[in-house]
Amino acid sequence: MGLIGAGGIAENRHIPAYQSLNEDVEITGVQDVNLVRAKEVAEKYAIPHVYEDYLEMLKHVDAVTICTPNKFHESIAVAALNQGIHVLCEKPMAMNAAEGKRMVDAAEKNNRILMIGYHYRFMDAVALAKQSMADVGNPIVTRVQALRQRKVPGWGVFINKQLQGGGSLIDWGCHLLDTALWLVSPSKPVEVNAQTYQRLSKQPNQVNDWGSYDHEAIDVDDHVSAYIRFDDQSTLLFECSWAANIKEDKTHVSISGENGGLSVFPFELYQPKHNRMMETHTNTTEDQQQAGLLQAKNFIDACSGKAQLRSSPQEALQVSKVIDAIYESSNQGKSVFIN
Amino acid sequence: MGLIGAGGIAENRHIPAYQSLNEDVEITGVQDVNLVRAKEVAEKYAIPHVYEDYLEMLKHVDAVTICTPNKFHESIAVAALNQGIHVLCEKPMAMNAAEGKRMVDAAEKNNRILMIGYHYRFMDAVALAKQSMADVGNPIVTRVQALRQRKVPGWGVFINKQLQGGGSLIDWGCHLLDTALWLVSPSKPVEVNAQTYQRLSKQPNQVNDWGSYDHEAIDVDDHVSAYIRFDDQSTLLFECSWAANIKEDKTHVSISGENGGLSVFPFELYQPKHNRMMETHTNTTEDQQQAGLLQAKNFIDACSGKAQLRSSPQEALQVSKVIDAIYESSNQGKSVFIN
Amino acid sequence: MGLIGAGGIAENRHIPAYQSLNEDVEITGVQDVNLVRAKEVAEKYAIPHVYEDYLEMLKHVDAVTICTPNKFHESIAVAALNQGIHVLCEKPMAMNAAEGKRMVDAAEKNNRILMIGYHYRFMDAVALAKQSMADVGNPIVTRVQALRQRKVPGWGVFINKQLQGGGSLIDWGCHLLDTALWLVSPSKPVEVNAQTYQRLSKQPNQVNDWGSYDHEAIDVDDHVSAYIRFDDQSTLLFECSWAANIKEDKTHVSISGENGGLSVFPFELYQPKHNRMMETHTNTTEDQQQAGLLQAKNFIDACSGKAQLRSSPQEALQVSKVIDAIYESSNQGKSVFIN
Amino acid sequence: MGLIGAGGIAENRHIPAYQSLNEDVEITGVQDVNLVRAKEVAEKYAIPHVYEDYLEMLKHVDAVTICTPNKFHESIAVAALNQGIHVLCEKPMAMNAAEGKRMVDAAEKNNRILMIGYHYRFMDAVALAKQSMADVGNPIVTRVQALRQRKVPGWGVFINKQLQGGGSLIDWGCHLLDTALWLVSPSKPVEVNAQTYQRLSKQPNQVNDWGSYDHEAIDVDDHVSAYIRFDDQSTLLFECSWAANIKEDKTHVSISGENGGLSVFPFELYQPKHNRMMETHTNTTEDQQQAGLLQAKNFIDACSGKAQLRSSPQEALQVSKVIDAIYESSNQGKSVFIN
Amino acid sequence: MGLIGAGGIAENRHIPAYQSLNEDVEITGVQDVNLVRAKEVAEKYAIPHVYEDYLEMLKHVDAVTICTPNKFHESIAVAALNQGIHVLCEKPMAMNAAEGKRMVDAAEKNNRILMIGYHYRFMDAVALAKQSMADVGNPIVTRVQALRQRKVPGWGVFINKQLQGGGSLIDWGCHLLDTALWLVSPSKPVEVNAQTYQRLSKQPNQVNDWGSYDHEAIDVDDHVSAYIRFDDQSTLLFECSWAANIKEDKTHVSISGENGGLSVFPFELYQPKHNRMMETHTNTTEDQQQAGLLQAKNFIDACSGKAQLRSSPQEALQVSKVIDAIYESSNQGKSVFIN
Amino acid sequence: MGLIGAGGIAENRHIPAYQSLNEDVEITGVQDVNLVRAKEVAEKYAIPHVYEDYLEMLKHVDAVTICTPNKFHESIAVAALNQGIHVLCEKPMAMNAAEGKRMVDAAEKNNRILMIGYHYRFMDAVALAKQSMADVGNPIVTRVQALRQRKVPGWGVFINKQLQGGGSLIDWGCHLLDTALWLVSPSKPVEVNAQTYQRLSKQPNQVNDWGSYDHEAIDVDDHVSAYIRFDDQSTLLFECSWAANIKEDKTHVSISGENGGLSVFPFELYQPKHNRMMETHTNTTEDQQQAGLLQAKNFIDACSGKAQLRSSPQEALQVSKVIDAIYESSNQGKSVFIN
Repeated sequence: MGLIGAGGIAENRHIPAYQSLNEDVEITGVQDVNLVRAKEVAEKYAIPHVYEDYLEMLKHVDAVTICTPNKFHESIAVAALNQGIHVLCEKPMAMNAAEGKRMVDAAEKNNRILMIGYHYRFMDAVALAKQSMADVGNPIVTRVQALRQRKVPGWGVFINKQLQGGGSLIDWGCHLLDTALWLVSPSKPVEVNAQTYQRLSKQPNQVNDWGSYDHEAIDVDDHVSAYIRFDDQSTLLFECSWAANIKEDKTHVSISGENGGLSVFPFELYQPKHNRMMETHTNTTEDQQQAGLLQAKNFIDACSGKAQLRSSPQEALQVSKVIDAIYESSNQGKSVFIN
Repeated sequence: MGLIGAGGIAENRHIPAYQSLNEDVEITGVQDVNLVRAKEVAEKYAIPHVYEDYLEMLKHVDAVTICTPNKFHESIAVAALNQGIHVLCEKPMAMNAAEGKRMVDAAEKNNRILMIGYHYRFMDAVALAKQSMADVGNPIVTRVQALRQRKVPGWGVFINKQLQGGGSLIDWGCHLLDTALWLVSPSKPVEVNAQTYQRLSKQPNQVNDWGSYDHEAIDVDDHVSAYIRFDDQSTLLFECSWAANIKEDKTHVSISGENGGLSVFPFELYQPKHNRMMETHTNTTEDQQQAGLLQAKNFIDACSGKAQLRSSPQEALQVSKVIDAIYESSNQGKSVFIN
Repeated sequence: MGLIGAGGIAENRHIPAYQSLNEDVEITGVQDVNLVRAKEVAEKYAIPHVYEDYLEMLKHVDAVTICTPNKFHESIAVAALNQGIHVLCEKPMAMNAAEGKRMVDAAEKNNRILMIGYHYRFMDAVALAKQSMADVGNPIVTRVQALRQRKVPGWGVFINKQLQGGGSLIDWGCHLLDTALWLVSPSKPVEVNAQTYQRLSKQPNQVNDWGSYDHEAIDVDDHVSAYIRFDDQSTLLFECSWAANIKEDKTHVSISGENGGLSVFPFELYQPKHNRMMETHTNTTEDQQQAGLLQAKNFIDACSGKAQLRSSPQEALQVSKVIDAIYESSNQGKSVFIN
Repeated sequence: MGLIGAGGIAENRHIPAYQSLNEDVEITGVQDVNLVRAKEVAEKYAIPHVYEDYLEMLKHVDAVTICTPNKFHESIAVAALNQGIHVLCEKPMAMNAAEGKRMVDAAEKNNRILMIGYHYRFMDAVALAKQSMADVGNPIVTRVQALRQRKVPGWGVFINKQLQGGGSLIDWGCHLLDTALWLVSPSKPVEVNAQTYQRLSKQPNQVNDWGSYDHEAIDVDDHVSAYIRFDDQSTLLFECSWAANIKEDKTHVSISGENGGLSVFPFELYQPKHNRMMETHTNTTEDQQQAGLLQAKNFIDACSGKAQLRSSPQEALQVSKVIDAIYESSNQGKSVFIN
Repeated sequence: MGLIGAGGIAENRHIPAYQSLNEDVEITGVQDVNLVRAKEVAEKYAIPHVYEDYLEMLKHVDAVTICTPNKFHESIAVAALNQGIHVLCEKPMAMNAAEGKRMVDAAEKNNRILMIGYHYRFMDAVALAKQSMADVGNPIVTRVQALRQRKVPGWGVFINKQLQGGGSLIDWGCHLLDTALWLVSPSKPVEVNAQTYQRLSKQPNQVNDWGSYDHEAIDVDDHVSAYIRFDDQSTLLFECSWAANIKEDKTHVSISGENGGLSVFPFELYQPKHNRMMETHTNTTEDQQQAGLLQAKNFIDACSGKAQLRSSPQEALQVSKVIDAIYESSNQGKSVFIN
Repeated sequence: MGLIGAGGIAENRHIPAYQSLNEDVEITGVQDVNLVRAKEVAEKYAIPHVYEDYLEMLKHVDAVTICTPNKFHESIAVAALNQGIHVLCEKPMAMNAAEGKRMVDAAEKNNRILMIGYHYRFMDAVALAKQSMADVGNPIVTRVQALRQRKVPGWGVFINKQLQGGGSLIDWGCHLLDTALWLVSPSKPVEVNAQTYQRLSKQPNQVNDWGSYDHEAIDVDDHVSAYIRFDDQSTLLFECSWAANIKEDKTHVSISGENGGLSVFPFELYQPKHNRMMETHTNTTEDQQQAGLLQAKNFIDACSGKAQLRSSPQEALQVSKVIDAIYESSNQGKSVFIN
């Protein structure tokens, strides 16, 4: 296994996961355009090889994990897949669905594993919600909120549209969007009405809990609202933000269906039984580290043919299409359709 | 003051309100097409005159309160206004905006008071939220939820589309829609994407806490979702239901604005100060009786020129336009624009 | 319907219940050996006839409700049944199972309805627990606690063994015992080990929240513990008290079964699903008035052949047999068997 | 001090305790039939000597702590005592009371200290409850619950009857039984009615939070109920389980006595004062490590004659007699007497 | 019994109390300088005689209850006592201690009962606190807070210094001062340092929850702080207010003593036992009606020689001396001594 | 930077603070009269130089932090300042105000920085309270409670009056006093009435959670109450204790002012707005380590002229004057004035 990009997500999520799975996988190399950083990480985690150029690394590994800014996802993934290398690529899939489509094509053409790191699917509560959709029945209305109170990430490249393709939506909202689309599938999104905002983060001297940033430079969305209509007439009310004037941070996914309803964080199920409404709950964790570990295990098992991907690249492409539609609807100031 | 329609809303809201204000107003007559009911109410509340035909009553009063099914709002209101009589008409204004427009025209032509009973504006929490919009600044995203867990009203005419024009939206959702539109004004709604549902209430043997009803006969929406785009790019995520599979009943209006945010039930204000986010709250009531009393007082004072209406008929007409747009968008399966 | 015994239970439970059901039943007479009391009640509730001798009343009614001290249950019930009169008799059935057996025989011989007032079965939470036993599966261990902190009833005849046959067990514990036996049926109790106590109530100057009483005269149990073994090896841990040194009053019935578990007050269900334990709850009331009303309705409907008794006299007899066994085990200081 | 058996209980409880007391005691050797394990522990904790045969160790120490499976308690303890060596033996005392009696005899004959590791007595809350029995007075009813929701220990030898003598009762329930018997002493148990179960753990694919086990091999009790009658007519309602369908894990001991009542976890005292019931509480810990340390200190001080054992071997033998009686009553399906 | 002054306190506290005690006392007359009010009350409560002049009433009664403004307490009480009539006089005793002293003298000279209506002593929690002072031991520091958030009484004569002698202290603070002085007696107050304020209530347009008042006319204290030193060196920190900018209303009395501590509202006792601090609580009411009833009973029983006053006039005089000292210290801007 | 005194406060507060600020400051030496301790600390934290005599150290540093017993604060600080060395001295300033005055004089004469370690001012909640005084307006009543339940520090020199000058007041109460005086400044204290106590700690065998101490040797206050009058007539109710019989430990500062009120721990603001009282809160920490770090930063920046001291030595001197007055008032048994 080779790591491409040696930033925080590589160090905090992927390296611990692979090292926990050391009977199944070995990290043999780490690459970064900042070679000093690559060496630092290699030394800290006893990774034998270091690379400045990822193409060099591709000669020596059978799988890679891509942790670069979004802009480089497509080119690296396609290069790897074309050389017969399996790819686990951090979310979002790419800058847009067109890039994502080329990644899917490369995976299919080369018959290699391509997984996008939508690890929320591996959270306890989300997996249980998916199992419980049989009790919910056909979805009617789905609600998604991924809201942070004044927490624009002031570090890294998060507010750089050139490198990331967007802000709160493409970086964090995408996780909850993927979660919701997975839960309601096979319902398919057909129309999107949306608006993106940069109002708070463009003001000087804003309160921001996650470090300071250049309010003139920031050119990505800090708040997004959207309405998504599905082919079965069910609908999804969506909102995400890095910087909202709200009571407190909130991560919410809930679905009201024909037979029951559920809420994901924490998991609760609402169902009629014995002629009254009942509520069922259990203890679930929302542990991101645990989810990252299960995702790594699923990827490795898929590479060796022992398991199916829980999160297919085709599904990740669908998420990218919806993200594209949200940005497009906001640009046009009216609803758009997804083909 | 004459009462037209002697049902529950007349008895429980308007008669107590006017009788509390007995220094300012006297109920001199009550009308109902069911004369037995009219007499029963008249006797119970010591109202001197009873009428079967409202036209007869209009000869003897200087103001009326209309409590009939929605279908009759327009004709009665226009007749009254044309005879120089002030009108307080229960919400919604009418079956649709076209009817509502004729009511506004009649009021303007005859220079008489026309008030629609959107009494939520007189609730403590709502009035305080309106005062606090100066702290919130321009709205960005508004959220409205008027959700009941399995409580289709099994009595009266609520599930009869011919008489009411719709279900959960036109009967209950309209209040929260009016509340939200008032709070964000002068922002104006321009585009609506929406879907209405009748899935749960059409199933036989559904759990329903508010009595039983004929699931074959019901022909109104029991659940509605909508997305409203305003002329200043702010957006509103809307949901209402009489019969959702949810944890518990929920009435929610919140706004995230450029300078702060607020939640209405209960009232809370979120603002940056001294370089951190602060939350302010107070004790507010959401007492419907108190709100009904304040509304009656406002109407009577407006009739006698001592006050301005807190709720103008033009604003009520705007609510009707949005309701029309929601139903229209659902019918077309795509977004529609409000002219 | 005639009432025999005009004390508190007649006035507070049975009269309101029958008067709510006035389309189905009419109270035509009330009897009490204290004729003044009988007249007082008759006047207050507009009951046409008053009797001092219940035999006289039996000539004029087709059903009676017996609210006398326990000592008189058998003789009155048998007399009534032998005259073809349906009987609703307050709990416990009688002073002991031998008396109860004669009541059952009389009912069967005369083919008349005999119901014992174990109204807990009509409580929302208890009825739902009964429905949920299918989810619990075969019972393993059942727990019953009916505990009051220092509340010996200081009024009436409750502490008089001659008239009542016992104390906390026969008066209150019997309800919870009936509830538990109903839930676990068809499991049958076969062995009982028990001990009854009168320690606290025999002390002078005890703290007692429900009035004062003569600590020398009291000759009934104020605290009872018991262990009941069933024919399927399941067991029941039982405790009841009027006067325990405990934290607070407690009414508890719970069952751990082979497939799940439940607790009755309030209703909760514990079950494995999706490979984890889940807890389900709902809103239930424990309203005694509501339960009394449903019991009266069930009795009246059974009298007219429209319904089956939820609580058969054979089941009530089983409760009496267990109560007998508890007292007998305590007397012998060792376990006894139920035939 | 020598350690016999180098498993988890030695490593996690006894070694830390003795090392905290390093001014009073030194661990000079560790024995295990698995010599690799013994060496591993010795190295980790700097213990100078390692033994495969405990008889060899006995030549070199003046005290031992026995941490083997229950089957070996008796033979090792008797051998040690006979060589004049003090013994701290983990609970339960032995496989049954007959073995335990021989251990007591050996201790008495050799005039050596024999302590059984019922360390709950050294918990803050338990010790305080013992001190408070003067406020409670003579016990009337005692309640013990040691219940776990689906937590059969899937590791070690816990489900092996040959090695352990039983399951949930002999392994965990014994602690709470010892606690309760200590609190109510000098009341003496005379009759036991009990039933043990293996229903849940014999089902395939049961949910189990503490690892998986072979449902066909398990041959010990997973759930036990019992009723214990004492010589003063007080009674004890007992239940323990590793795998009950319950709301949540529960460890409960409470006593209602003639003058007051108490609950142990957490400590609360219920007493009449100034003519009303009052509740007294304090902050107590239920820290097992702290209790283990105090137990080790008590043992060492007793060995050197500086203290009396808080937990005498005669008392531990009494616990074993009650455990024997529970298993015997269950086998016979009726109550048994303790001689 | 005759009532002098027919305002709210007479109607809401004293008349219900005496009517509950109708076996022991009869209200034979009511007096008010507003004869219309007196008649209204007499009719409503079936009081046989009405008087405009209290001197006239004194000819016909053997006891009176004085409910007038404070200014008239002394003259009426002295007149009554001098005619051999027992007196229950509402708190505070009088405008100042000099007046109070003359009342005490009159009672002693005429050997009649004089009770001041410090009914807090009859509250459940306060009486229990008094009983518990044996557990507290000698007081060290006592804390009293009687604080209301923006609740200047806008009705009656409460803000009129001429009639009342002061504001928040003399009207409400006096109750808590009496409570605290009773609890710590026989400790005697010797030095007082205090300050009174009228800052908030003199501002125009203040938020006030208890009606509006003339901010220019108000000439009484709305906030008071004080420090009282006792002869045993214990001290009391005192604060009362009608109109403080605080979180919420608060009534607090607590004492830290040499052996323990207590808090009164609700009752809690803090004591060392078994070498740790323990907290004891119970259920107490703070029911003013119940306290008023017990006070009336105590007064009547004292009049008939069946009981001693719980609240002696000498103690009430002590309260007045402390109130005088507080006002005097504030005027002088430094501490003053109580002789 | 040199450290004088190498005890707990040096190791736990100052060394971590300076080491976090290692870009701005370097600890070059540590002094202690116990040279062994000094060497231990120097080695542990890699401090290059060790001194037994602080005068020797003063030759080699440009700033010192004084962590000795209070008795030595003055002499060391004056010696350092006279040699042109900046001084951060732990609180309290000195044994009394006279000593403190000489320290201020030395700082002024030598134009060097003198800061006293009242680090509460750097706590999040306290700093925010200071900023919020503009919303509170002129203070009316301030309340300070620094109360511990049975926690006399049994280690170090805390109970030695010769070395410390006092007990609970001078050691802990001084922090809260400084906090309150800072918040209400520029109001100036003019009169103090106070009492100190040693009652509990002089009793043998007292429960004490913070170790044991010699109850005969202790000669400092364990409980203090005080009343402070300011030049603007505002007042402060003060209480501190190490050993009170109270419910639980409590640190409280609150102010009711003319325009609003606040509470510091946790921060809450009470203000009228829109004609009602509102409460505002936020998340603040009370982290002592964080406060210590900010204090060190402020000191270093002040030394280098980059910042002003948040806590001036003149203000610390004012705290010492109030402490002196409290002890003096207690000695005299009456109020004293501050010049």
